[in-house]
Amino acid sequence: MVAVKKIKKGRPPKVEKKSKNSRINSMTKTTKSIMKKNETNIKEKKTSSRAKVSPEKSIGKIKFEHPPIYFFGGGKADGDGGMRDLLGGKGAGLAEMTRTGIPVPPGFTITTEVCKVYYQNNLEVPPEVDREMEKYIAKMESILGTKFGDSENPLLVSVRSGAKFSMPGMMDTVLNLGLNKDTLEGLIKKTENERFVWDNYRRFVQMFGNVVLGIDKEKFEEVIEAKKKERKIKQDSSLQVEDLSDIVKKYKAIIKKKTGELFPDDPWMQLRMARDAVFRSWNNPRAISYRKLNNIATNLGTAVNIQAMVFGNMGNSSGTGVGFTRNPSTGVKEFYGEYLLNAQGEDVVAGIRTPQPISQLGHEMPEVYKQLREITTRLEKHNRDVQDFEFTIQEGKLYMLQTRTGKRTVQAALKIAVDMVKEKLITKEEALMRFDPAQLDQLLHPRLDPKADIEIIAKGLPASPGAASGAIFFTADAAVKAAKGGDSVILVRQETNPDDIEGMHAAAGILTSRGGMTSHAAVVARGMGKCCIAGCEAARVNEAKKQLQIGKLIIKEKEVITLNGSTGEVMIGAVATIEPELSGEFAEFMSWADEIKKLKVRANADTPRDAIQARKFGAEGIGLCRTEHMFFAEDRLSIVQDMILADSIEERQHALDKLLPFQRHDFKALFEVMDGLPVTIRTLDPPLHEFLPDKKAIEEEITKLDKTDEHYDNQLAKKRKILQRIDELKEINPMLGHRGCRLGIVFPEITEMQVRAIIEAAYQVMKDKKRVVPEIMIPLVGHINEFSNQKEVVKRIAEEVLLKHKVKDFEYLIGTMIEIPRAVLIADEIAGEADFFSFGTNDLTQMTMGFSRDDAGKFLRYYVEKNILPKDPFVSIDQDGVGKLIEMGVKKGRSVKSNLKIGICGEHGGDPDSIEFCHRMGLDYVSCSPFRVPIARLSAAQATIKEKKKTAERDK
Amino acid sequence: MVAVKKIKKGRPPKVEKKSKNSRINSMTKTTKSIMKKNETNIKEKKTSSRAKVSPEKSIGKIKFEHPPIYFFGGGKADGDGGMRDLLGGKGAGLAEMTRTGIPVPPGFTITTEVCKVYYQNNLEVPPEVDREMEKYIAKMESILGTKFGDSENPLLVSVRSGAKFSMPGMMDTVLNLGLNKDTLEGLIKKTENERFVWDNYRRFVQMFGNVVLGIDKEKFEEVIEAKKKERKIKQDSSLQVEDLSDIVKKYKAIIKKKTGELFPDDPWMQLRMARDAVFRSWNNPRAISYRKLNNIATNLGTAVNIQAMVFGNMGNSSGTGVGFTRNPSTGVKEFYGEYLLNAQGEDVVAGIRTPQPISQLGHEMPEVYKQLREITTRLEKHNRDVQDFEFTIQEGKLYMLQTRTGKRTVQAALKIAVDMVKEKLITKEEALMRFDPAQLDQLLHPRLDPKADIEIIAKGLPASPGAASGAIFFTADAAVKAAKGGDSVILVRQETNPDDIEGMHAAAGILTSRGGMTSHAAVVARGMGKCCIAGCEAARVNEAKKQLQIGKLIIKEKEVITLNGSTGEVMIGAVATIEPELSGEFAEFMSWADEIKKLKVRANADTPRDAIQARKFGAEGIGLCRTEHMFFAEDRLSIVQDMILADSIEERQHALDKLLPFQRHDFKALFEVMDGLPVTIRTLDPPLHEFLPDKKAIEEEITKLDKTDEHYDNQLAKKRKILQRIDELKEINPMLGHRGCRLGIVFPEITEMQVRAIIEAAYQVMKDKKRVVPEIMIPLVGHINEFSNQKEVVKRIAEEVLLKHKVKDFEYLIGTMIEIPRAVLIADEIAGEADFFSFGTNDLTQMTMGFSRDDAGKFLRYYVEKNILPKDPFVSIDQDGVGKLIEMGVKKGRSVKSNLKIGICGEHGGDPDSIEFCHRMGLDYVSCSPFRVPIARLSAAQATIKEKKKTAERDK
Repeated sequence: MVAVKKIKKGRPPKVEKKSKNSRINSMTKTTKSIMKKNETNIKEKKTSSRAKVSPEKSIGKIKFEHPPIYFFGGGKADGDGGMRDLLGGKGAGLAEMTRTGIPVPPGFTITTEVCKVYYQNNLEVPPEVDREMEKYIAKMESILGTKFGDSENPLLVSVRSGAKFSMPGMMDTVLNLGLNKDTLEGLIKKTENERFVWDNYRRFVQMFGNVVLGIDKEKFEEVIEAKKKERKIKQDSSLQVEDLSDIVKKYKAIIKKKTGELFPDDPWMQLRMARDAVFRSWNNPRAISYRKLNNIATNLGTAVNIQAMVFGNMGNSSGTGVGFTRNPSTGVKEFYGEYLLNAQGEDVVAGIRTPQPISQLGHEMPEVYKQLREITTRLEKHNRDVQDFEFTIQEGKLYMLQTRTGKRTVQAALKIAVDMVKEKLITKEEALMRFDPAQLDQLLHPRLDPKADIEIIAKGLPASPGAASGAIFFTADAAVKAAKGGDSVILVRQETNPDDIEGMHAAAGILTSRGGMTSHAAVVARGMGKCCIAGCEAARVNEAKKQLQIGKLIIKEKEVITLNGSTGEVMIGAVATIEPELSGEFAEFMSWADEIKKLKVRANADTPRDAIQARKFGAEGIGLCRTEHMFFAEDRLSIVQDMILADSIEERQHALDKLLPFQRHDFKALFEVMDGLPVTIRTLDPPLHEFLPDKKAIEEEITKLDKTDEHYDNQLAKKRKILQRIDELKEINPMLGHRGCRLGIVFPEITEMQVRAIIEAAYQVMKDKKRVVPEIMIPLVGHINEFSNQKEVVKRIAEEVLLKHKVKDFEYLIGTMIEIPRAVLIADEIAGEADFFSFGTNDLTQMTMGFSRDDAGKFLRYYVEKNILPKDPFVSIDQDGVGKLIEMGVKKGRSVKSNLKIGICGEHGGDPDSIEFCHRMGLDYVSCSPFRVPIARLSAAQATIKEKKKTAERDK
Repeated sequence: MVAVKKIKKGRPPKVEKKSKNSRINSMTKTTKSIMKKNETNIKEKKTSSRAKVSPEKSIGKIKFEHPPIYFFGGGKADGDGGMRDLLGGKGAGLAEMTRTGIPVPPGFTITTEVCKVYYQNNLEVPPEVDREMEKYIAKMESILGTKFGDSENPLLVSVRSGAKFSMPGMMDTVLNLGLNKDTLEGLIKKTENERFVWDNYRRFVQMFGNVVLGIDKEKFEEVIEAKKKERKIKQDSSLQVEDLSDIVKKYKAIIKKKTGELFPDDPWMQLRMARDAVFRSWNNPRAISYRKLNNIATNLGTAVNIQAMVFGNMGNSSGTGVGFTRNPSTGVKEFYGEYLLNAQGEDVVAGIRTPQPISQLGHEMPEVYKQLREITTRLEKHNRDVQDFEFTIQEGKLYMLQTRTGKRTVQAALKIAVDMVKEKLITKEEALMRFDPAQLDQLLHPRLDPKADIEIIAKGLPASPGAASGAIFFTADAAVKAAKGGDSVILVRQETNPDDIEGMHAAAGILTSRGGMTSHAAVVARGMGKCCIAGCEAARVNEAKKQLQIGKLIIKEKEVITLNGSTGEVMIGAVATIEPELSGEFAEFMSWADEIKKLKVRANADTPRDAIQARKFGAEGIGLCRTEHMFFAEDRLSIVQDMILADSIEERQHALDKLLPFQRHDFKALFEVMDGLPVTIRTLDPPLHEFLPDKKAIEEEITKLDKTDEHYDNQLAKKRKILQRIDELKEINPMLGHRGCRLGIVFPEITEMQVRAIIEAAYQVMKDKKRVVPEIMIPLVGHINEFSNQKEVVKRIAEEVLLKHKVKDFEYLIGTMIEIPRAVLIADEIAGEADFFSFGTNDLTQMTMGFSRDDAGKFLRYYVEKNILPKDPFVSIDQDGVGKLIEMGVKKGRSVKSNLKIGICGEHGGDPDSIEFCHRMGLDYVSCSPFRVPIARLSAAQATIKEKKKTAERDK
């Protein structure tokens, strides 16, 4: 990026000093003569057609690749709609409208290139550009018959920024430029509204003082306040002409005092100064942070648009309005908007007068209305999207001031996209590309009724979208009990852990006071499609007292709150919600995505309930069934604990024998739901201590044991044993501890039970003539011997079961998670043995980057804020780091087995950028939580379309 | 590896069934004829010279690459000393001795290839080999004038295993084979000792019954016991001929009963059966586990040596003895050994008669003695190493039975190596290569006086070598206090944590009941060169009661124990120790290593005390100074805690300002000690919670606060704040949490203070005209922005300090640890900014393999036992995984900066295999704990020598 001079607040650099460009002065003769020549070129070429403009213009050492100014007006324009890089979005739009014959007030655009030069050139615009400006002002004058700075028929202009990407409200604008004592008179004559003109003048001086001269708004506001006090009035609108005139005088005094210079009366000076101020505003703090937030490059620069002012307040044949070509809330195809006669743009927005619905204009000014409809229809067709437009009617003549793609609700966006495809206005590909996949989320969850009154009491992280109301409960048990009783329940916890799973299932929503976007609560809730707000730090959760305190507000158990998981807002009481609609336009739209996408989309689903949800959302298989989630149900957990407490293989086997029918039952139900679609089942993964209760709880239970009970000794012994095992299993870094295949290797009998359950379940389903394709997945493999060890167990048990039932030709796969960096390094070796890979990008990210998902929240937030990391790598794959490993893994794996099936599972499987990455890597599928399946389907389609475009461009 | 039939214990497979090789029977005609042809080939070639032997011999489907049998005797041998692969160590040795004219009883070696065929061929030796054996027995007979199975002058033989790598005592041997009723008589005539011969026969039948026929020794021992009871005697040696004869009868009855067959009287059958038993013994459980422990491949197989028996008990012109060419305890060059006349080998060892020192033989049999000295001197010269030999004199004729490289103490090995270089017997390179670097450790630490009486009360892991006696204490504070009083202290803890550092420093040794070889205690103790026993599970440490309980033994505070950190043995009371000697031969030897090695060797040293130690051991710089270790001293820790408790930057800065002088002081001292050698200083690395006290301790302190104290409220508030911060800083996986550069990024003022301390210290030292080369190292970098961020801080502060003191031309480097996998993936990017890399292989191993060093102990031990991992990756770099990342990091780094300085720090820096790996990777240096520096120097030299050899071989 260019070096930027620091601009002091409060006092602007003196931009009006005589042109003494030191670079130009120090130039050699040769360079000077080249420059001269080029200057001549510019002038010559400017009058000729745009196509002939020389591609390189040099001013001093600074080379212009393009002419510095592009004119539009009188039905012609130097630029066009494709030149957003050079003219900014607004400039390109104005040029395009002018070209297509739409009435636009004439004006010109100073290019973004000039902005870059301005920054390279010590914050000065080369004087050649000033001379060019004079020429184009003259052209405007000749079109309009007005004159810049003229006291009879003055030309007033607006000076607006216009960057390549819209940054609404971020940069500066000066309106009514050209006003001074002389032109004031002219304008009063034109508008016949002295007070209005004085008020404009007051605003112009204030705007100029603030934007261009850098004086605090406060200073000006104080003057108005003092005047209102003096005049004992409350509204600005009550100020009279003499008041305004006095205020302007005082404003000018402030300016003189602050800058040491008089307020510039010369319109040309005003123009140059405003132009430079707009250039400077590219680097104001608001703009910088907006760009950061929206991933806009810092070196694009802004263009400046100088355009003739038109006035909608020149009597009843004048007016102004705004509108949309389709309804932006519903998407219905109807002309939508409002207007006011004899008014300026501000008045429509300010709400002092009530605007009329736009259809009324058809009655009041039928010709203008017809023209407006024609124009906007043309604009929609031309731009192939809903248009959001502004217009002004000056003395019966319609001017379009702006048109741009209209913002709309997601619901509307969907309808518009589907309608436009049917109208053959856009292709299916275009419809798909127009949709930000993340927005789909809003369509899949219940949402708050926008008409409802809400009272927000706290805000946390929007951890899992959707909305829910319910009575609050503080333990999983209480939540389950209440839900069984039919209540809608909100589970409130400091943070959740696997023990809470059943409670989370039972709840309509989850609120935690700790943890980030990837905390346990957030991840599990997203998986379940439950609304969740995590890390709501204002909420003090007191489980013992069964109360939730927010500030001074205390909410007791069973009282009702509402969560908006899409915004992170917590509300008191019940708020009405609207259920999602997955058929109709939604289904049609998604079917187009499926036609196009190459990646398969599977779901992470642990239970038949999840699987049903997943299919509803269009999942093409299960990419990850976490068998341990079957272990947490009340009737199973104690058996699992017996298994963990076992002192011998025999005891452990005994417990496993009791677990077998449960797992078999679940797998059977899962296979039945999936009905022949592939189901990837991961063997036990989490460290065993996750299945044991909290240490403190056990310690308390021990103190509460009844010593007179005849079973006291037995009970005490068992609880002491649990305590002892908790201590034995305690790990400093459980994430890197005894889990994954390391469990199955040390306790092969666990893997044996799980495989037996899978194959027996598959056999039972097959008996009913249904197809089953189980894919057994070994987690956390880092060394080939780990995989071989578990593969042997799987094959041995599977063959044993199949032999017993005399089943032949049964297909099942044995594959592995690639989630440890080392597995990537030996992916070729593993591919020799494995039928498939599934990248576990959560753990792979944790280990590759050295971030604990549970702990990194604090500094990761700081990292993203401070731009040390571009994004949270747990939300979107870190393509430069983790992504390189994935690429390596795919290459190595396929080098040995070219048709190796490869997918990813984990949170990234539902992230659009990550999905595009997976598509580029040539993966076979992504797997994500059921509620993200539609997002993944759309993202996968978009990835295919983008690739096609790239290929087409390359082939050109 | 070949498929191996399972051999049932207790009952051997019937190996003597008629040859009905099913493979051969089922062969096609064609194959059979090929086989026949090849058989003929073998026979033909066998009589011709060895050089002409066809390289591929096929017997049936089995192809022999070499002749199955190699003969030695009569001054000639088919094999030689280089053929250990094929003939095993013993066979090759016998051939070599025979070739060099040394008198060796004749015999032959059946190759390891036959062993492999035996396993491939359903545990049967092809009958061709039997026929070959007959031929070579005949050859022995003709040399000796005896006859196998003859009743007049019988040839008896020994049948011994002999694998490529010596596996002493692991496999089976049968002596005196050929004995039966007939040959018994002949032998009695020869030895004129009927009882001895009967005892031998009894032993032979027992040995054969056990080894060859697989009958429990117990069964035979019971018979002897019964006989002794019957005869009312206690010693075996009191059994008479008739007793022995009766025992043999009973033995044979047992054999008949157990195997269903008679004891084989046919010497040929004995021979074949014994041969097969030796082959089988390759896979007995003892041998399998020995190979595992010693990293010997499982598919080498063993050779079988069949050699004529000679008898040292044929009167006073016979005898037997063992000896060394140099003293194996001291290394002094003296003929060393002992012998007995009219005795067999067993008698020398058994201790019934007292053997004579070997010099005595010079008086008793001067000719034989002279010949023996000549032969052994020749053997030492020939084999260029100390020889451990066995000999037998049969009727005045000397036979050498075995010679091999003599085992020696480390002290002796050093002296011998240095002496031999001086004698020009070996080169310096050879001397260096002979030494297992790990052995050096024994020379660097105090060791137990081998003459001392010891009582071992428990055994733990030999976590850090050396020996120490001292009074036990259970807290760091108590240890420090006692040590200040001048006591030698042993710190006893369940496990240690960073709070214990000062206590560990104060202690002479550390004993923990938990934790593995890479636990905190082990790692820190090795770093300090303190003796440490970790994971001594038998020790129950009760800090509250201040006692250590081992079984029923209770040891109270202040009672004395002794630790042997090299073996893991805990002893009661004080045991005398011997201090190490680092000058003289040791220094000379190490200087040769330094001449040759290419890698620099630095030390990890955190304090001036460590640095002095490091230089004593020859460190060429400090590769890692962990600044946080300076934070734990009593006078600093509370300031560090204030820093952590700070609520604002100002408070934090205030605490840091107080820390600055301490750090500056330490760095200054460090620079002074290192005197111009490079010093790599790592900025703060561990998570902050490590500096806070234990939660429970604080909770207890709160309950103990005096409520009547006027400062009660303040004290309570402070302690509560500590509690709160402990909770806030608690992490689920601290290893992957807020630590390393992540601290310096969020709290730049910490980095600033450290850099200021470093540069100011350097300036102070430089003022005294000393050179200082600080290398500032940023830990845990994963993203280039992290490095750039910290580099900016370092440069800014350094420049500020240097400017203040008007210092110019001051050299300092800014580099980074490469310890996060992601850092490797972007090593090229980082190299663009960094002056050096230091691979932090501890963390890199943790993250690449997904193993928490603190937790993995349990299953890693299982992994290594079960051969899932070849080695503990925290001890020796996992070259196939982590090593690939290192290679990638080096390549990427040097691709951008070809002269990038690269080292490693961490435990691996002192591991010989890892050092060789670092040498191969082209690293500049390794850094390890001071006590491992000599090991690293030697390993680095060996790596260079190995590389030279390889290059030389390749260039051949």
